[in-house]
Amino acid sequence: MAAKNGASDAHRSRDRLGDIIFGTETPAGKTFDLILIIAILVSVAVVMLESTEYFRTNYGPLLTGLEWGFTILFTVEYLMRLYTAARPWRYARSFFGIVDLLSIIPTYISYFFPGTQVLVAIRTLRILRVFRVLKLVKFVREAGVLGRAIVASRHKIIVFLYTVLVLAVIVGSLMYLIEGEEHGFTSIPRSIYWAIVTVTTVGYGDITPQTVAGQTLSAFLMIMGYAIIAVPTGIVTTELAREEMRSTARLMCRSCNTEGHDPDAAYCKFCGEALINHLNAQRE
Amino acid sequence: MAAKNGASDAHRSRDRLGDIIFGTETPAGKTFDLILIIAILVSVAVVMLESTEYFRTNYGPLLTGLEWGFTILFTVEYLMRLYTAARPWRYARSFFGIVDLLSIIPTYISYFFPGTQVLVAIRTLRILRVFRVLKLVKFVREAGVLGRAIVASRHKIIVFLYTVLVLAVIVGSLMYLIEGEEHGFTSIPRSIYWAIVTVTTVGYGDITPQTVAGQTLSAFLMIMGYAIIAVPTGIVTTELAREEMRSTARLMCRSCNTEGHDPDAAYCKFCGEALINHLNAQRE
Amino acid sequence: MAAKNGASDAHRSRDRLGDIIFGTETPAGKTFDLILIIAILVSVAVVMLESTEYFRTNYGPLLTGLEWGFTILFTVEYLMRLYTAARPWRYARSFFGIVDLLSIIPTYISYFFPGTQVLVAIRTLRILRVFRVLKLVKFVREAGVLGRAIVASRHKIIVFLYTVLVLAVIVGSLMYLIEGEEHGFTSIPRSIYWAIVTVTTVGYGDITPQTVAGQTLSAFLMIMGYAIIAVPTGIVTTELAREEMRSTARLMCRSCNTEGHDPDAAYCKFCGEALINHLNAQRE
Amino acid sequence: MAAKNGASDAHRSRDRLGDIIFGTETPAGKTFDLILIIAILVSVAVVMLESTEYFRTNYGPLLTGLEWGFTILFTVEYLMRLYTAARPWRYARSFFGIVDLLSIIPTYISYFFPGTQVLVAIRTLRILRVFRVLKLVKFVREAGVLGRAIVASRHKIIVFLYTVLVLAVIVGSLMYLIEGEEHGFTSIPRSIYWAIVTVTTVGYGDITPQTVAGQTLSAFLMIMGYAIIAVPTGIVTTELAREEMRSTARLMCRSCNTEGHDPDAAYCKFCGEALINHLNAQRE
Repeated sequence: MAAKNGASDAHRSRDRLGDIIFGTETPAGKTFDLILIIAILVSVAVVMLESTEYFRTNYGPLLTGLEWGFTILFTVEYLMRLYTAARPWRYARSFFGIVDLLSIIPTYISYFFPGTQVLVAIRTLRILRVFRVLKLVKFVREAGVLGRAIVASRHKIIVFLYTVLVLAVIVGSLMYLIEGEEHGFTSIPRSIYWAIVTVTTVGYGDITPQTVAGQTLSAFLMIMGYAIIAVPTGIVTTELAREEMRSTARLMCRSCNTEGHDPDAAYCKFCGEALINHLNAQRE
Repeated sequence: MAAKNGASDAHRSRDRLGDIIFGTETPAGKTFDLILIIAILVSVAVVMLESTEYFRTNYGPLLTGLEWGFTILFTVEYLMRLYTAARPWRYARSFFGIVDLLSIIPTYISYFFPGTQVLVAIRTLRILRVFRVLKLVKFVREAGVLGRAIVASRHKIIVFLYTVLVLAVIVGSLMYLIEGEEHGFTSIPRSIYWAIVTVTTVGYGDITPQTVAGQTLSAFLMIMGYAIIAVPTGIVTTELAREEMRSTARLMCRSCNTEGHDPDAAYCKFCGEALINHLNAQRE
Repeated sequence: MAAKNGASDAHRSRDRLGDIIFGTETPAGKTFDLILIIAILVSVAVVMLESTEYFRTNYGPLLTGLEWGFTILFTVEYLMRLYTAARPWRYARSFFGIVDLLSIIPTYISYFFPGTQVLVAIRTLRILRVFRVLKLVKFVREAGVLGRAIVASRHKIIVFLYTVLVLAVIVGSLMYLIEGEEHGFTSIPRSIYWAIVTVTTVGYGDITPQTVAGQTLSAFLMIMGYAIIAVPTGIVTTELAREEMRSTARLMCRSCNTEGHDPDAAYCKFCGEALINHLNAQRE
Repeated sequence: MAAKNGASDAHRSRDRLGDIIFGTETPAGKTFDLILIIAILVSVAVVMLESTEYFRTNYGPLLTGLEWGFTILFTVEYLMRLYTAARPWRYARSFFGIVDLLSIIPTYISYFFPGTQVLVAIRTLRILRVFRVLKLVKFVREAGVLGRAIVASRHKIIVFLYTVLVLAVIVGSLMYLIEGEEHGFTSIPRSIYWAIVTVTTVGYGDITPQTVAGQTLSAFLMIMGYAIIAVPTGIVTTELAREEMRSTARLMCRSCNTEGHDPDAAYCKFCGEALINHLNAQRE
């Protein structure tokens, strides 16, 4: 009886811990998430400062100490997540499970293998962890609308990006022929890199055409890049407008059979009958 | 009696002065605003010329004289605003109250503390004062539509900007690993600066990738930046279209006093009463 | 009688000449316009080649000869336009009248005043003359839709551009404080030039921030510039959609009083009655 | 009889071969297309590596061998296409027929004329062949929507591009006057190249204005370029929204066989007959 109670208590306390760690509803869960966000952001700042020569030279020991503190904190958190997760193995293989692991491993590796100092930059992946905690805030619906609009237009965006890449390959190859190695276009891949820099209107200027033919071709490429940026914009705008419409206006009037009512409407704007949102129940 | 009249007169003349300074309706108020706009623009031009070596050397005394003239003019104006404001302290702490103060203080400080010459650049903040005076012109409705559209889409824009920043942090850290300090990526913050320069398609070219891996990753980042510019554009366009629709066809229900009805609505969507478009007559 | 006939004949032949020169309907008018377009484009090409050192050295006399040929041709054309225009003085002061004059004057000036060689670049203004002749082609309706959309959104675009300029002035002044003259920010106007280069995402890289504070501020400016490009796009898109709607769908069904029919519709899509385009007559 | 059967057999086997090579429906046709895509992509990669000095030096013979293998493979494929095509001559003159030929010829030419090594870059045109094979995948409908939207807005885009080019010619000529040859603006064509680099917001920084007047004019050009990018975006977005609407709700009138009716239409707008949405059932 006592053993069963003990097991049940342990079970219950694990559940409660899980609510705090994974949940975002309870006050304790919110406090946990807030502390975690601050810890993540400060630890990313520490990683950045450590990579700067000035801070590495002057505050090296302090930054190393902080880094170890955060690593131990995140390790404890990771183990607790494994312990409280309903399916630990599934959590470990999930996107955030891998990010959580990658956030702590480099510090341990650099301790045992001194030459792997450079791997520590991987720790900035910690910034991705903030996305999980963002469940806290109200931005989720907005992110959802954006996400669905991008997913819905993914085919068109792939067609577009493929066209841009083919354009970059062809113009890059032509520029390799026209300008040649003496003007910085030393190979086709490098010329394609130049073409991407140009068509996306980034324009570093590390490689630039020197001949009249090359400048004419690149002027053509620039104008192409300048005009076709309109295409993804049009795609996303159209999809976003439709997604907005879908997620906000799904009311139908049963008396006159019209649609297109606002999400806050209680009466039909065409015939004045009361509206019933018959899709609300369906949507999750 | 005379004292009372005197006080009342003083009160009345203060009100009249306030109408001229803060108001934009009366002819005197309009003239005052026009003179103020010219004074602001000329004084900003003087600050700019003063920062240019050629003008500082050749016209130094003239510019200093003009600057003192404008400072005294704006000081008098500031004191009059304080005097005529209904709640002086509230004005002093308001956005424009602080801008007004920052517009005049640097000149006095540079007089008493000769080494603070450099602070004078703060005086270009005066340009912000023009916004207040813009109440004059008809652009306010347009600015209102734009402003409301941006406010309505602020959540989506924050989600978007956060995603761009996280992308810049991650790609920046990877480039620090790939390119290393010998190619100009001397620290993670500097690499993130490079990533922002690249993803926004600015592309200074002060730091550029030299290795094949780095150029491949940055080509990916450029194409991302080129494609995802579509997202804020889609957001603002969708919101602007909706805001336009709302602000051009503003129907009001006389029975429940609600607004926001569609331009083709015949019945109030909140209470079911018939709508009368009482604004159609007013609008030209 | 003969004199009257003679005057009438001269009058009639002037009218016929005017039809050829200004008109675009008759076969003779179309041929004239086609020859003129070719002459304009070739003469602009000659101006460009003349500015190139290689061609100036090797083909100088040929290019000068061609230039004089075109100048005389355009002078004859200009005089004929003056002669055949209904109101010569009004034509001379019109936009295209001034462009026509500016296209021929520099050559004469450079003949009489040898030092004014450099003015010849003004002759590229000839390219503007092609716009007049474009009446030929069908692009006019499209240009009209674009033009009206831009005119309709001009207030919003001015508000937008003013905001961008104020942002550039403020960030430029701050960068002058932060970076100082030793990093290329030698004056406030030059810093504002840098800010405009950055906020428009052009990014020459001739002036770049060197300090951490300057790079942080410019990263902020880039992200602003990257995000706010969405605003004019949204404005023009919304206006263009509305303009399209206006210019294409102005049919109203007289039997069921509905609008929104396509411009090619002959029957009402809601009730099946025949449609009468009662606005066609009104529109020019 | 036997001869006739033999001829019929040969005919039938040619048809079957044609189905495999040109078709995309049968399993054999799909397998053929998949192998072809892989061969194309690998051969393009080989061309790119061959242009890189490191790979040319270390793996020259291997790459040459692979190149000859692919050339022979594509030659066999080209001959088979000629053999199985219903109209061989029409295929040979078609866009893809020419691309197929250009993909194999440079290798043979470089064998017979050793100095034409450089022509091999033309072989990257092979990447265009992937477009034909893309019939395989589902992206065709999406590409069709994009393509029709761009075709429908081609007049407006041409007007826009012409305006941008005229702006570049005029500002380029002015900059040649203002900056002169000593600041890199050595000729009008080169100044126009600079203007295009600037107005498209590419901004290499290989030519930059040095004078105050030049910087002011280029700041104006940048802001123009930054604002007018909104125009093609608006055009494509509007057209895409309309195209989407058309292609998703395609009603056909059974009495007059016309398409292009709005999704909410109940009667044919051309003949007034009742419409039945016979595609709703077909669509998933």
